[in-house]
Amino acid sequence: MAIAISRRGNVEPFHAMDILAEANRLRGEGRSIISMAVGQPSDPAPRAVREAARNALENGRIGYTDSLGTRALREAIAAHYADHYGVSVSPCRVAVTTGSSAGFNLAFMAMFDAGDRVGIAAPGYPAYRNIMAALGLEVVEIRLEDRPYLTAEMVEAEHKRAPLKGILFASPANPTGASVPPEELDMLVKTAEALGIAVISDEIYHRLNFTGADHTALSCSDTVTVINSFSKYYCMTGWRIGWMVLPEKLVRPIERIQQSLYISAPELSQIAAVAAFSATDELEAVKQRYAANRELLGERLPLLRFPLAAPMDGAFYAYCDVSQLTNDSMQFAKRMLAEAGVAATPGRDFDTDYGHRFMRFSYAGSLEEMAEATDRIANWLR
Amino acid sequence: MAIAISRRGNVEPFHAMDILAEANRLRGEGRSIISMAVGQPSDPAPRAVREAARNALENGRIGYTDSLGTRALREAIAAHYADHYGVSVSPCRVAVTTGSSAGFNLAFMAMFDAGDRVGIAAPGYPAYRNIMAALGLEVVEIRLEDRPYLTAEMVEAEHKRAPLKGILFASPANPTGASVPPEELDMLVKTAEALGIAVISDEIYHRLNFTGADHTALSCSDTVTVINSFSKYYCMTGWRIGWMVLPEKLVRPIERIQQSLYISAPELSQIAAVAAFSATDELEAVKQRYAANRELLGERLPLLRFPLAAPMDGAFYAYCDVSQLTNDSMQFAKRMLAEAGVAATPGRDFDTDYGHRFMRFSYAGSLEEMAEATDRIANWLR
Repeated sequence: MAIAISRRGNVEPFHAMDILAEANRLRGEGRSIISMAVGQPSDPAPRAVREAARNALENGRIGYTDSLGTRALREAIAAHYADHYGVSVSPCRVAVTTGSSAGFNLAFMAMFDAGDRVGIAAPGYPAYRNIMAALGLEVVEIRLEDRPYLTAEMVEAEHKRAPLKGILFASPANPTGASVPPEELDMLVKTAEALGIAVISDEIYHRLNFTGADHTALSCSDTVTVINSFSKYYCMTGWRIGWMVLPEKLVRPIERIQQSLYISAPELSQIAAVAAFSATDELEAVKQRYAANRELLGERLPLLRFPLAAPMDGAFYAYCDVSQLTNDSMQFAKRMLAEAGVAATPGRDFDTDYGHRFMRFSYAGSLEEMAEATDRIANWLR
Repeated sequence: MAIAISRRGNVEPFHAMDILAEANRLRGEGRSIISMAVGQPSDPAPRAVREAARNALENGRIGYTDSLGTRALREAIAAHYADHYGVSVSPCRVAVTTGSSAGFNLAFMAMFDAGDRVGIAAPGYPAYRNIMAALGLEVVEIRLEDRPYLTAEMVEAEHKRAPLKGILFASPANPTGASVPPEELDMLVKTAEALGIAVISDEIYHRLNFTGADHTALSCSDTVTVINSFSKYYCMTGWRIGWMVLPEKLVRPIERIQQSLYISAPELSQIAAVAAFSATDELEAVKQRYAANRELLGERLPLLRFPLAAPMDGAFYAYCDVSQLTNDSMQFAKRMLAEAGVAATPGRDFDTDYGHRFMRFSYAGSLEEMAEATDRIANWLR
């Protein structure tokens, strides 16, 4: 008997996934559960996407593709930058990835070595921290305090304490939903690059801005790494398909790592994703529903003593301060799931220091579910 | 401008994938190319698999699943061990992964820390080496010399030189196709474990043995990590779906890492893969064709001055010594692709020291393709 268990494997669990597993288990027992834990649309992928997948299934083999993705999808993604942002991107700079999850892992591997200091916002998406830790990077959590997003000054100050090799930020952000305004984004990117800090911009919640237009970091610089995905706006979570836009010099390193670590993204998802860019009417209708959910929760959550900890600019999250109700949001989330049948994510996922006082609610479900969930919570709290 | 490029990103390319990309490019130009470069079946997934996927597409959302996989697929995989090997495996020990690629990355991350020495056979599958290197492990290549597979004595000898933390081997192996006989497998696993060396058994080419029955390392020990996939026998490469069977103590570490690095394997592929275990008639017919290809190549390749470097026990590979024809198999492969329209993989992928003298031919295509490919090569060599 010889079992090796590494130290690096001792990463924090992604509690939202544990809550999802528990919610699935309870549903298996016949319980009614409303899931606001995981950031995933309740709608299926657009009709045209499913149609494209069905056709591909008829037509034969689903095989490996070029490691960087099919030419058709890389071109469709490049065209999206011209259409949606007015930014010119060569298809050669696009890498198709197995969700944004692969995008992060690839970016960290290709850009950073063990020991490199990489800055992220706290609170933030836990996988950033967990993947970096597993790869031996030094995760530098920059606390937002009362600001909703990372600013150029915060990065500058942290870099002065000890040099940063890179920074990573998301706008709209997870868990807060806060967006970085265009002029702040520009300053953030330019300041970082002037200091020699490589920039990764997580744009997975683009097209889900409720208060303004999308701004890609690519409009500030050609040397940022952008990570995006078909999971959120395009309703394709389980298809595991996303993309990166890379500075030219990173294309070949990313390709080499992808060849060994992923071979290629799932071909069926690549074929289907091409159709996602032409499904705007259907997807905008879904976004309208999120907007209604957002309004409902923006009213009801504070009344339930879950005040918002940040503005709900975009994505489909409400990040709430639950300290009037509990000092242990992990226990609170477990009890809320077991007793009220509502799954939400404890703040611990996003903030190891202060997460015990916060919870994240995903409002990607139906309006009826949002109403029912808030009713259930209200009854349960009584 | 600030681009970070890591040292670890400087991994060797997976040349088979580069050859695939070049073959796809030439095909795009209208050239007729026979691909024997990448280890992928030319058949589509079995009818029942595609049918299950089509139904799932009708029925709605394709979403995240539990990180370790759907219950239905984990149970189907566990049942496969009882049916095919007579080995009892609890579904709780099964982790569904995004192809075996994810299985390797997860195993290395959960089991080993930077600097740990892990033994693999040379020649061997390049992704082993490349992923380990990217994670900072010390890759210990154990040269097979004139033996077709790794033996207990080789591992013992290497461990005496400097302690190994783990070993990884494949049977049938890539690139050679050689299988480890059952009594040798038993000795290898038990010797390693007695020395405190953790064992990873790559069983991705199981059910593609032409000379004997399959033997899983799980029949030797409960504490090995087994990696397998639906890509090869089940003809599902592009679906990116595989699995691991884990010692109980590794289940939770693997789950935690999977949550952050992959979230979950593609749901559509998980749903479809359940049906793969009931498609045996269709898949055995495919295997019969490989057997015919194997016979053809076993005869013709040596006549073309490509003598076999190992017995073609299983998988769908012929690993050939090309030193009568070239001292640079990389250049030779490029010319053969450009001039004869036949893509095969230079040995460099599998063996950094002696690969320049070898090439790997995948015989997962049709019998007509194999005949045509060998004709083209014969003409080209003249």
